[in-house]
Amino acid sequence: MTLVLHNFFRSSTSFRVRAALNMKGLSYDYVSYALRKGEARAPGYLALNPQGLVPTLETPRGSLTQSLAILEWLDETSPEPPLLPDDAWGRARVRSLAHAVALDIHPVNNLRILFALRDRFGADEAAQADWFRHWVAEGFTAIEARLAQESETGSFCHGEVPGLADLCLVGQCLNNRRFDVDMSPYPTIARIHAACMALPPFAEAAPENQPDAA
Amino acid sequence: MTLVLHNFFRSSTSFRVRAALNMKGLSYDYVSYALRKGEARAPGYLALNPQGLVPTLETPRGSLTQSLAILEWLDETSPEPPLLPDDAWGRARVRSLAHAVALDIHPVNNLRILFALRDRFGADEAAQADWFRHWVAEGFTAIEARLAQESETGSFCHGEVPGLADLCLVGQCLNNRRFDVDMSPYPTIARIHAACMALPPFAEAAPENQPDAA
Repeated sequence: MTLVLHNFFRSSTSFRVRAALNMKGLSYDYVSYALRKGEARAPGYLALNPQGLVPTLETPRGSLTQSLAILEWLDETSPEPPLLPDDAWGRARVRSLAHAVALDIHPVNNLRILFALRDRFGADEAAQADWFRHWVAEGFTAIEARLAQESETGSFCHGEVPGLADLCLVGQCLNNRRFDVDMSPYPTIARIHAACMALPPFAEAAPENQPDAA
Repeated sequence: MTLVLHNFFRSSTSFRVRAALNMKGLSYDYVSYALRKGEARAPGYLALNPQGLVPTLETPRGSLTQSLAILEWLDETSPEPPLLPDDAWGRARVRSLAHAVALDIHPVNNLRILFALRDRFGADEAAQADWFRHWVAEGFTAIEARLAQESETGSFCHGEVPGLADLCLVGQCLNNRRFDVDMSPYPTIARIHAACMALPPFAEAAPENQPDAA
């Protein structure tokens, strides 16, 4: 199966898909879009992804957009190793943790939002960074509480194998490095982040290991 | 099965779950939290949902948070009628459309974000409304293009039965009413919205039909 991943090294939604492709042993061609230069808004790319966002996964069947939809599709079509547990309650827990990052932290801290804060409200870099850290703290405080107290938490977010929640959580931790987020209030998240990054599929997906890294 | 939905009449994430419960013929107790008064941040509720957000679905097994995780769980445990198509490619398409609303429009226009724009940057009601409309236009332009050109679109987002994408899209259309969003550039979305609201499960889930409606 020929797969082409349209993405950007520093994008955490791109990281999620790169790491999942690595976990499943699926090779792919890498196409990069410099988001700050607006390359994802070029007409050629909009034909693949009308939202002009990354990532897009080109498959023999067509183009897939939205990182979480791509991850669910990968898990359904290449089930080993699974990204979700085999029981409905466990799947709900993992999706809930993943979505606490993917819906409530990442979207409001995305580059396009920080640019809009600058252009509409004059937010300088310090104000943008403070905004970023605020929403990380809101989300991570709740996620840390859940991971620390729920019995399903193991070496990873859910037991002893990494999955959907870990992909989202680690992607966010990687983003946090650019905004000096203090991770000391989140020892469980920090422990899971370290456990994931010790695995080749995660390490090889890291921004600094991509061909378009600065 | 005794279900308790912790929610708020005007919350579109709550709407998604109310309409899905109605579609599947599942009855539930309704508990309301006045978001503007901070009721979802009270300690009793934080024990159910550490994020302090709505909705939360209490089930005999425990509490479920994150509307999309709740919807996937409902679909797995009460499969009829389905919220997702039975083929992997169709499911990816429906999730991608749903997520274009649920990840890229709703989170950045949420009440807590509009309040943060006011408190941090002095955004008045007009600036907040302009921010809201901007992100709706970004997302709806892309979604309209997809729905208008993709052959899978039918009376609803995907064929002739409503599902996950319709729940998210209609919830957003209901929110848009409060910010005078001009729907004329989005005839396909408007058509699908009307088709859904003609169905009792959607109509009965509308904000104005909830016990806590003003």
